[in-house]
Amino acid sequence: MALIVQKFGGTSVGSTDKIKTVAQRVLKNHRQGNRMVVVLSAMSGETDRLTGLALAMQHIPDQREMDMLLATGEQVTVSLFAMAVKEMGGDAVSLLGDQVAIHTDNMHTKARIYSIDPDLINKHLEQGKIVVIAGFQGVTDSGDITTLGRGGSDTTAVALAAAMRADACEIFTDVEGVYTTDPNVCPQARKIDYISYDEMLELASLGAKVLDIRSVGLAKRFSVPVHVRSTFSENIGTWVVEEDKIMESMLVSGITYSKNEARITIKQVPDQPGIAAKVFLPISDAGILVDMIIQNTTDGRLTDMTFTVLRRDYDRAMELLKKVAADIGAQAVSGDESIAKVSIVGVGMRNHPGIASTMFQILAKEGVNMMMVSTSEIKVSCIIAEKYTELAVRALHDAFALDKDNLPVEEAE
Amino acid sequence: MALIVQKFGGTSVGSTDKIKTVAQRVLKNHRQGNRMVVVLSAMSGETDRLTGLALAMQHIPDQREMDMLLATGEQVTVSLFAMAVKEMGGDAVSLLGDQVAIHTDNMHTKARIYSIDPDLINKHLEQGKIVVIAGFQGVTDSGDITTLGRGGSDTTAVALAAAMRADACEIFTDVEGVYTTDPNVCPQARKIDYISYDEMLELASLGAKVLDIRSVGLAKRFSVPVHVRSTFSENIGTWVVEEDKIMESMLVSGITYSKNEARITIKQVPDQPGIAAKVFLPISDAGILVDMIIQNTTDGRLTDMTFTVLRRDYDRAMELLKKVAADIGAQAVSGDESIAKVSIVGVGMRNHPGIASTMFQILAKEGVNMMMVSTSEIKVSCIIAEKYTELAVRALHDAFALDKDNLPVEEAE
Repeated sequence: MALIVQKFGGTSVGSTDKIKTVAQRVLKNHRQGNRMVVVLSAMSGETDRLTGLALAMQHIPDQREMDMLLATGEQVTVSLFAMAVKEMGGDAVSLLGDQVAIHTDNMHTKARIYSIDPDLINKHLEQGKIVVIAGFQGVTDSGDITTLGRGGSDTTAVALAAAMRADACEIFTDVEGVYTTDPNVCPQARKIDYISYDEMLELASLGAKVLDIRSVGLAKRFSVPVHVRSTFSENIGTWVVEEDKIMESMLVSGITYSKNEARITIKQVPDQPGIAAKVFLPISDAGILVDMIIQNTTDGRLTDMTFTVLRRDYDRAMELLKKVAADIGAQAVSGDESIAKVSIVGVGMRNHPGIASTMFQILAKEGVNMMMVSTSEIKVSCIIAEKYTELAVRALHDAFALDKDNLPVEEAE
Repeated sequence: MALIVQKFGGTSVGSTDKIKTVAQRVLKNHRQGNRMVVVLSAMSGETDRLTGLALAMQHIPDQREMDMLLATGEQVTVSLFAMAVKEMGGDAVSLLGDQVAIHTDNMHTKARIYSIDPDLINKHLEQGKIVVIAGFQGVTDSGDITTLGRGGSDTTAVALAAAMRADACEIFTDVEGVYTTDPNVCPQARKIDYISYDEMLELASLGAKVLDIRSVGLAKRFSVPVHVRSTFSENIGTWVVEEDKIMESMLVSGITYSKNEARITIKQVPDQPGIAAKVFLPISDAGILVDMIIQNTTDGRLTDMTFTVLRRDYDRAMELLKKVAADIGAQAVSGDESIAKVSIVGVGMRNHPGIASTMFQILAKEGVNMMMVSTSEIKVSCIIAEKYTELAVRALHDAFALDKDNLPVEEAE
């Protein structure tokens, strides 16, 4: 008798009819002999509605009160879901974050879970009930309601699966699973059957939206097998598991792209110790995240510094940098919002250092110029002009044969 | 520095603008040096919206899940209210029934409070905060959310005032206070300045809607001074207090009427021991409340039994009674839905047994026939034909001079 945690997002429970459909599916799994724990998000649109009310009250809503307000969204869904199960002749009980209890720190609107007590859930499971838990929410030691921020319900589901040593954590979404790349850009994109935590972490951080990166990190830490699959079909989706559970790893598992970044260059900066700090301190003080940084020394005394920030921070960053440039005697600050980051990810490239240069060759052949490059053990990211994004993704998908198994070929030594 | 509990109902907090208006008022009271505890209902319409969702899920919604669902209504209001206070430069914190903690039994949808822990509220008050508490809800010993049923927020407010030994419990409503009778029926109706708990209990049970009867009972038990007043003006409303706090009690304080009842008569019942039980047992087994009962023995062997039920139960009661009548050999069952109950209430009548007959005379003078009468120490109720309701109310209001002080005149002995 397997213990399965299933999480359904806002779109999957966006109406009373959709809640019934999901309830039917969960009940079917339950009647097949599984013990079922269900994690639900707020009905789609509800969080926006509540946020609108909050903004009508307070310019910048108080974060504790915001959590108090937003937590009602999931509370509505779980109670309706339990009713639906009961109407279908099953038994279910809804539980809130503080009832479970999902203990978090007190960082309101982006709290982190530090413990979950599985006793109450187990008690209800032993009575044959489907346990329906409000995602996205927890409680501090002093009894205040917290929310977990973006992707919070995924995190709730994985944390519960970890705490309860569940056999699987199934994340239901509106796609069939994790794809080798965005099927909208590349029709040859293929659903991935198995992917390692590390690859999924890279894909999530590089722009794949199917699974929140925090929940992947948590799944990795507690070895929770995660199954990403569709709410709207019975098909097997993508299993995110430990690397050694995957028989053979692909050379390249997935290709992602992101158009959320912008590039800034400070030209002719005096190449002295402490200059980099002078450039980046005001940026980080303003809460602006810097992703890639490169520095080219043009001659012995002067250097160009280039880095990327999120596009939404671009204007603020440019403004700050212009002041800094004047202070440190740099020649000029230039920027470019029309860039994209294209990345290839795969654990198979660990032992194949040639992958990066293969990527460069493929892009060169298409006439795509690379502005910046960054690499990790299992990924290579290139900054290119935004207009080449789709071309680059398709060319890489094709050249690395992601539409087929692209197992690493042992190279001649 | 007074401690004041203020309760605002759904209409008073029915929109974000209305919540702001109420927040401003509470903040003003706070800045005048009072410690403020605010109890709020759900925004008007919200409970109906949630009930609609529940009925879409389950034919007869599970009561535990219904409470889980409905409790979100007040949770939304209290968090928005706290935000509004903060936006205005004040400090506030919202608390739910389980956070307070308002402990109840586990009778879902109509739970009863058995204890309230004032510690957390006091802690926040000492920090100078306005404490905003979700009305209508509590928590069982096992941590389940409960709701208190009809008028629940009034009950929450009075219970809090009792637990915290508040100087006053102010119930804000859409009228100026408790009136001598319904001003829509009798333009001479006058706002009552002071009324005793017992009178208020009678008025509430006889149809006055301004204050829920449970909260009045609670206020009486713990001697909580209750101030019923208008959300929309600064005027003094009606104080509901202990009888001995009122310098001089009126002979008749108020006149109420109710059109929610229906009358049923079983004719020619054998007048034997055990017959009454045979008649009323099926009625009470069906959960139908019986209000007045009269029995007239027509001769030694046969009797007519007449009683009243709520009009919504009339059809079911008639059906049950027809079966009973056949069983016990009664001649016939007849009924009348076109009746009304008109009542006069006043502690002053305790020592003036002539009040009932004065009432009968007044009604007789207007040509109004009385079908049934019931009396208590401080009230007299008459069942009359529904069409005479307004006429009777106005005649009684006039004859007992409720538009003026009608202090009891000591009668010559």
